[in-house]
Amino acid sequence: MVIILENNAKEGQINSVIKRLEDYGFQVHISKGEQRTVIGAIGVKPNFDIRQVKMLDGVADVYRITAPYKLASRSFKEENTVLNIKNVEIGGNHIAMMAGPCSVESKEHIFRMAEVVSKSGAKLLRGGAFKPRTSPYSFQGMGEEGLKIMREAADAYNLLVITEVMEVSQIELIEKYADIFQVGARNMQNFSMLKELGKANLPVLLKRGLSATIEEWLMSAEYILASGNKNVLLCERGIRTFETATRNTFDISAIPVIHKKSHLPIIADPSHATGYRDQVPPMARAAVAAGADGIMIEIHDDPEHAFSDGPQALLPDTYLNLMQELKVIANAIGRTI
Amino acid sequence: MVIILENNAKEGQINSVIKRLEDYGFQVHISKGEQRTVIGAIGVKPNFDIRQVKMLDGVADVYRITAPYKLASRSFKEENTVLNIKNVEIGGNHIAMMAGPCSVESKEHIFRMAEVVSKSGAKLLRGGAFKPRTSPYSFQGMGEEGLKIMREAADAYNLLVITEVMEVSQIELIEKYADIFQVGARNMQNFSMLKELGKANLPVLLKRGLSATIEEWLMSAEYILASGNKNVLLCERGIRTFETATRNTFDISAIPVIHKKSHLPIIADPSHATGYRDQVPPMARAAVAAGADGIMIEIHDDPEHAFSDGPQALLPDTYLNLMQELKVIANAIGRTI
Amino acid sequence: MVIILENNAKEGQINSVIKRLEDYGFQVHISKGEQRTVIGAIGVKPNFDIRQVKMLDGVADVYRITAPYKLASRSFKEENTVLNIKNVEIGGNHIAMMAGPCSVESKEHIFRMAEVVSKSGAKLLRGGAFKPRTSPYSFQGMGEEGLKIMREAADAYNLLVITEVMEVSQIELIEKYADIFQVGARNMQNFSMLKELGKANLPVLLKRGLSATIEEWLMSAEYILASGNKNVLLCERGIRTFETATRNTFDISAIPVIHKKSHLPIIADPSHATGYRDQVPPMARAAVAAGADGIMIEIHDDPEHAFSDGPQALLPDTYLNLMQELKVIANAIGRTI
Amino acid sequence: MVIILENNAKEGQINSVIKRLEDYGFQVHISKGEQRTVIGAIGVKPNFDIRQVKMLDGVADVYRITAPYKLASRSFKEENTVLNIKNVEIGGNHIAMMAGPCSVESKEHIFRMAEVVSKSGAKLLRGGAFKPRTSPYSFQGMGEEGLKIMREAADAYNLLVITEVMEVSQIELIEKYADIFQVGARNMQNFSMLKELGKANLPVLLKRGLSATIEEWLMSAEYILASGNKNVLLCERGIRTFETATRNTFDISAIPVIHKKSHLPIIADPSHATGYRDQVPPMARAAVAAGADGIMIEIHDDPEHAFSDGPQALLPDTYLNLMQELKVIANAIGRTI
Repeated sequence: MVIILENNAKEGQINSVIKRLEDYGFQVHISKGEQRTVIGAIGVKPNFDIRQVKMLDGVADVYRITAPYKLASRSFKEENTVLNIKNVEIGGNHIAMMAGPCSVESKEHIFRMAEVVSKSGAKLLRGGAFKPRTSPYSFQGMGEEGLKIMREAADAYNLLVITEVMEVSQIELIEKYADIFQVGARNMQNFSMLKELGKANLPVLLKRGLSATIEEWLMSAEYILASGNKNVLLCERGIRTFETATRNTFDISAIPVIHKKSHLPIIADPSHATGYRDQVPPMARAAVAAGADGIMIEIHDDPEHAFSDGPQALLPDTYLNLMQELKVIANAIGRTI
Repeated sequence: MVIILENNAKEGQINSVIKRLEDYGFQVHISKGEQRTVIGAIGVKPNFDIRQVKMLDGVADVYRITAPYKLASRSFKEENTVLNIKNVEIGGNHIAMMAGPCSVESKEHIFRMAEVVSKSGAKLLRGGAFKPRTSPYSFQGMGEEGLKIMREAADAYNLLVITEVMEVSQIELIEKYADIFQVGARNMQNFSMLKELGKANLPVLLKRGLSATIEEWLMSAEYILASGNKNVLLCERGIRTFETATRNTFDISAIPVIHKKSHLPIIADPSHATGYRDQVPPMARAAVAAGADGIMIEIHDDPEHAFSDGPQALLPDTYLNLMQELKVIANAIGRTI
Repeated sequence: MVIILENNAKEGQINSVIKRLEDYGFQVHISKGEQRTVIGAIGVKPNFDIRQVKMLDGVADVYRITAPYKLASRSFKEENTVLNIKNVEIGGNHIAMMAGPCSVESKEHIFRMAEVVSKSGAKLLRGGAFKPRTSPYSFQGMGEEGLKIMREAADAYNLLVITEVMEVSQIELIEKYADIFQVGARNMQNFSMLKELGKANLPVLLKRGLSATIEEWLMSAEYILASGNKNVLLCERGIRTFETATRNTFDISAIPVIHKKSHLPIIADPSHATGYRDQVPPMARAAVAAGADGIMIEIHDDPEHAFSDGPQALLPDTYLNLMQELKVIANAIGRTI
Repeated sequence: MVIILENNAKEGQINSVIKRLEDYGFQVHISKGEQRTVIGAIGVKPNFDIRQVKMLDGVADVYRITAPYKLASRSFKEENTVLNIKNVEIGGNHIAMMAGPCSVESKEHIFRMAEVVSKSGAKLLRGGAFKPRTSPYSFQGMGEEGLKIMREAADAYNLLVITEVMEVSQIELIEKYADIFQVGARNMQNFSMLKELGKANLPVLLKRGLSATIEEWLMSAEYILASGNKNVLLCERGIRTFETATRNTFDISAIPVIHKKSHLPIIADPSHATGYRDQVPPMARAAVAAGADGIMIEIHDDPEHAFSDGPQALLPDTYLNLMQELKVIANAIGRTI
């Protein structure tokens, strides 16, 4: 922690700040310049609330000198984390494609969608059995039956299953059927659940909250890592801004920022980010060009009658064409898809 | 739903939109102007995803004509909801004061704080036994022991207890000790928990999410109301914006907006909204002047050593002085405190 | 400037950072801790771009230790700036009321409005003769004729005139008729104009830009102060956020923040902040309660036919009633209005 | 305009709304449903303030049915606008590259930079002679001398010149030296200047304001178009959000949105959007992949000593390599660069 004192801080104020720091257990280094005094406070105090010092008389500003997360940081682990799930790698040079319907709707439907996913060369099938919906009157998901048929469809086409978990009591159930837990944006800071997922046996894809800073997002990843689960994927899905022409603002620059700050793979979800089908292909291309380690896309063969989020689902043919474009772009930056 | 067609929409496009609406079960009314056609689609379709129509060829724009929430709306219930909890009224002409430490820290401490609360004339004691913390390395709360001693302190000073619930499994436990559940900002869209709280026996104070629109906030209240619990309090605690000089931006204008759109009481929490002690009194005064039905304030007698959020806690004396100012302001607008 | 090096920064990297700082002309102080090295760089380098150092190899973070503004800061001038314009004080214990129509519309109208302003006890008449409108097809103001009749109306009722300046070429003209220049939110960073206003003879009320941080706002004030004009008023008028229920989000907490960081008076404009008449009284009351040094309110006796912004104008009677409430609230915090 | 009445609106309220609309000169169409009445109000009222109707008793909501801009809209002009400036096309299938230093610094320097630009195959040289700086103490540009030497450098390498105009009085001067005016983000709503640029003889590149919605941006383009200048380019350069890890949030989804709503070309500026050199290449690639019609990039051969924005400037070699990647991505989506 570095403490900058006011230009006109008095001797008594400075001493009182130093005393307070020592009481908190910090080692204190003082640099008196002609105009200003700067204090360095060193000591193992993870998550010390720096506002405690910021408010003291004579203090102009205070800065943390360590990121509040550790296990998620690039400085803790220099090389990229590469997950290997039943021989599917995520986080390496190959870009992982995840596709499927927003909700699991029926056995026939999820099998048809799994076929499309498989045909495209993707290895991961997405689909929700428990659905977080803004309205209590909307479709809330098929529950365990949905998990079951998604597993069958995935097995039939040799795919992995990724599906959303909404509360602690669903963890055990989902582990029976899925290969990756998905944590939705609205649960990014459901700390009770994050802790339990840290003890679970499957990797976790952690979506960024609608208004979460990148630092908070990494702190939520830290919850999972600190509880023992090292297999975390991050997923950018759009943030909330003043712009209303799109559902959210897809923060594509989060991709290089995450690559700099963390060793965890970063997946992009252009479907939720934009909310409209016709914007999904350009944003998927942009995400690959920006360096995403995976792309998650919603598809549906009858989006007008989808149980949820039909307007953002790509038709199978559009999706298959998009895959061709993505391959060329991936090659342009030395990667495969 | 009102559908505005493009200026140059073709006959075939218009007919195809009409057919689609009829397929969805809507009754359709068409108004052809010289320049433009407008379609009204009537029918009981709560939560129909209007993007389904927005994307059709020839459609320029689509508007919902009903709010997506019902039980929470002023048009459903014209008169204000006034809660009566053990003879303490919230939502009427009297402004409810809620105060206490951020975390329950020890028996002695919570008793001392309860004494201050009682002395100020407030009737509600706040304090957290389960703490949602951004970092996994921070103090996570005393748990049941904290609930127990807070109940004892409240009983000793004839106060009600309001405390945070973080997951479904805590509901039953907290009901044994508290009078009001508090749902934190980060759990505003923890839909699984909202549904369960709708079946619980205590009133629920629902904090606004950091980036929740007022409409989404009312939708979350709707989850609780629709599950059977009619006793919901809303709490504004600051929203996330680009400004970094304050912890959050206290959206005081949400107070008159809620009063217009909903019958539910609206409480203001200036402690979390600003994050700094010296901004709490002016913002508490502003909230009363703007018409808040209650004010929630964090207090601590040794904020430098508080287990959480010390920098935003008022000292007992500052709090007692503030109460005097608030009373005069309340009187200025014809209310009491 | 304080430079925090990476945990694992190498000797060579550290030396290279030091050399670079010395090349830039800084005096360098080095603190080597067990885990980390921190460098203090002292020297008179106003507006040095800290990103230059942030990007060097081995650097984890860099912090400025001086605010980028000087003349506008509380540390430069401890006592409040109190303007005295023709015996009307702004910035002292008395809260200055400014009222009038959005646009000057006709001689009869501005005289009627001036009468209302005078009757309320306010001393400042507002009104626009040059109007910044989002659309090129909207009313653009009466120009010089508007200035002339506003001056006549103000003189008839012994009021000061405050009116908006939109470009450098209008400065000389407006000086002939007005007592205070108003700079609109959209021109807050029209630096060419700010420099010229710094050489002008009248005080300047500087509105906060729609997405300006408080720091940027003070930097714009600095432009005027640095060019020689010491009479600057700041005006909070709402910032842009994701919320759409209000036109803008009224950042009332900016009031105590400005009082802490700067000696300049802070005025609040609840009319533009909310955009709707029925939210103006609660927000005006809140602003007074929060400590604003002045309140600017739009009024109109026939808002349905106002040339601009009718929906946010108060009717004269509502305005006169509001003034009574504001007086009581001002008294509650030891001020007058 | 479509007016939705309250569920429980009374006959008298409805009639009074209708009368008001007729007084305003609208033709009125009424649809009475079982639950609700909806009114269509037709008539040529560009920029009617819909809040006037929104506030009437019994009105639930009001929607505009026409975009407030016309000349900028895709429905006004279906085919893409393709500019041809001295045989350089912008807006067609070829993606226009614009590069150069942030500020013109010296004759030698701008010649060196022009050489790099030319070598890369780009046809447009950017550089500022008048600089809008947040701080009054920062470098403010070389003025006319800067324009002169940039013109010479451009002529020597057969390039077009694009440079920023900050106020009306500079228009005539810049027209002597440049080929395209650039309007900076902070001047996007400097309406006085936009009107004058509408009468000027050169095309105008209009940057999006830091917190401008896409609709407001198109309204500002409308100012220029409506004053007679049909040659307008739009430029996305990042918007302001709560995220602080990047200087701004690059709203890449604005690219497909603009292509849908408008016929004007859309340029992307990843240098200002991110603020850091290492994020410029991934974001430039993403912008091309998303369909941008041009890319503007800042370059510098000694960024540590650049007069402004050095940290976001690419070194010549990085820029030349990036151009190779962009070409492959452009080809992947059927375009050239």
